[in-house]
Amino acid sequence: MSLHTAALSREPAALAHAGIVAFPPGTATMAERDVLDTTLAMRHAGIRRLRIGWELQGAQDAPVIVVQGGISAHRHVAAGARFAEPGWWDAQCGEGRAIDTRHHRVLAIDWIGADGSLDACIDPADQADAIAAVLDHLGIVRVTAFIGASYGAMVGLQFAARHGARLGRLIAISGAHRSHPQVTALRVIQRRIVALGRSEGGVREALALARSLAVIGYRSDVEFEQRFAAAPAVGPDATRFVVEDYFDAIGPKFVARFSPTAYLRLSESIDLQNLDPASIRVATDIVAVREDRIVPESDLYALAEGIRGSTRLHRISSLYGHDAFLKEEAQIAAILTAALCRSVAA
Amino acid sequence: MSLHTAALSREPAALAHAGIVAFPPGTATMAERDVLDTTLAMRHAGIRRLRIGWELQGAQDAPVIVVQGGISAHRHVAAGARFAEPGWWDAQCGEGRAIDTRHHRVLAIDWIGADGSLDACIDPADQADAIAAVLDHLGIVRVTAFIGASYGAMVGLQFAARHGARLGRLIAISGAHRSHPQVTALRVIQRRIVALGRSEGGVREALALARSLAVIGYRSDVEFEQRFAAAPAVGPDATRFVVEDYFDAIGPKFVARFSPTAYLRLSESIDLQNLDPASIRVATDIVAVREDRIVPESDLYALAEGIRGSTRLHRISSLYGHDAFLKEEAQIAAILTAALCRSVAA
Repeated sequence: MSLHTAALSREPAALAHAGIVAFPPGTATMAERDVLDTTLAMRHAGIRRLRIGWELQGAQDAPVIVVQGGISAHRHVAAGARFAEPGWWDAQCGEGRAIDTRHHRVLAIDWIGADGSLDACIDPADQADAIAAVLDHLGIVRVTAFIGASYGAMVGLQFAARHGARLGRLIAISGAHRSHPQVTALRVIQRRIVALGRSEGGVREALALARSLAVIGYRSDVEFEQRFAAAPAVGPDATRFVVEDYFDAIGPKFVARFSPTAYLRLSESIDLQNLDPASIRVATDIVAVREDRIVPESDLYALAEGIRGSTRLHRISSLYGHDAFLKEEAQIAAILTAALCRSVAA
Repeated sequence: MSLHTAALSREPAALAHAGIVAFPPGTATMAERDVLDTTLAMRHAGIRRLRIGWELQGAQDAPVIVVQGGISAHRHVAAGARFAEPGWWDAQCGEGRAIDTRHHRVLAIDWIGADGSLDACIDPADQADAIAAVLDHLGIVRVTAFIGASYGAMVGLQFAARHGARLGRLIAISGAHRSHPQVTALRVIQRRIVALGRSEGGVREALALARSLAVIGYRSDVEFEQRFAAAPAVGPDATRFVVEDYFDAIGPKFVARFSPTAYLRLSESIDLQNLDPASIRVATDIVAVREDRIVPESDLYALAEGIRGSTRLHRISSLYGHDAFLKEEAQIAAILTAALCRSVAA
């Protein structure tokens, strides 16, 4: 909290002092989105022609922060003047937020594979290279920070390992250098459900089911206790459990915006993560959520110990488990603000 | 361990002293199995004609112990002279085992619903009443102990609550008075997978998939780490993870011996468990496995606190999580032997 307060008090003068051009409120902002058609040498899938959607927004010419979320996140991180629709992380990104678009430009891509057009093995390293390709295209040599959560943290670790020279600081929330084998097993089941539905014609229902299964792991047992412990409706021939209303709400929503191929390939991509932490020499903040059932704390300890750059491990506790980065607004904001402050001071 | 040793040293003289007829090795044994056609007033499904398969084996006229396992267990607990095929719990039951057939008769039933002929909501209380019906049929007024594991422990708790006057002691391993809502959510998904396969014609594959998902929860994360952490085989278009060999081995085995209806109804039955622990006034041993992801320890603490009879809570640790009752032979044998010894002394 002391660092958080310090950060609030150092703008804009302190930022300017640290060598960063700071903009008072009202400074000209920019927002652009486009697609980059390029060729990428993928780790498993060989050389491929790809189309990478990107969005860049914030203060004109300000330092760049890359922000990437989970497999269902996208290039529109936050609402702005030009692209006013809600982003997936408005709580943390925007004017006056922890990732302050008055002082930074925020860059994000749509995950390669997210449009369902690439049916091939996608390594998280490929996503890092795709981001690097967009940076090259935009003439951005160096980024102040890479803030990644969930799959975005995995990609951030890959970016730090592969493109460390152009990165100031990595902030990796709830994502590690590998997937835990038990969680991989659960995701294998999710993909097999979709494959079952695909071969049998019930692919929308199957995808909704796979998503429901995934979501069980995203939240803590305490939340399930609080929300779904009521007795089921039992008839002679059928029982309906309280949690089924929840599944029937989230499944179709997900199906409406995710193709089966995109889901299969991005889910698989999470399980392809396999990085030696020692290959990272960038200053790194790691955020571990105690209740996260998808990314065990023990894996994040191993990551923190293995990284060769200076490392800070932040442990937080949340009812929301793996979804804490979306829900624990104050805890996450404090960590981001402090880390970005260190990043500026470095 | 002291109780364990005591139990070994008190046979047969001490058992006779405690008012139990003890049989030296070589005493006449019996083994019978049959089906009982009866009518049961079921909790949700109304009055139904049922066929209940049972097996009774052990020393002639010896005290009776009811032994019931998980939803895939059955009436043949252990191999004997007459029914020599392996049982599902030979490690704990048989001549010279913790549940010693030289000094007891062991009774078990095939779960109602296990043959797939009953497509209705089955409460664990119905299973307890089915066991009581078999006891009535056999003229057995009282049983020395009910040893239940997993679903069998849930049914044992129901038996203790509903037929406590005819029960000496309950030993409940890895089963509680309710299902945890998060685990119910996982089982809802398992049942929906089967339902999806059923409507789409891929029911065998779907059942195998549901079973694979169930099994992930039965074992600990440490076991997955040890067995399945090796890197996957990655091609340009497909990846095969190590755990998939395991899934492809266990799924078809399960499908060969379980009908979709039986699976759906017995899985649902686990989630219908809803018992007030205060309704139990029988002496009870509860066995909790720290690594059990299906039955959280906190639920077993609540159970132990709520029971009105004298209660012992045994905590063990096992790599095998919920499956510890099948795998931790020495730890489980020590607990059973000591509990049965107390049961005899009572």
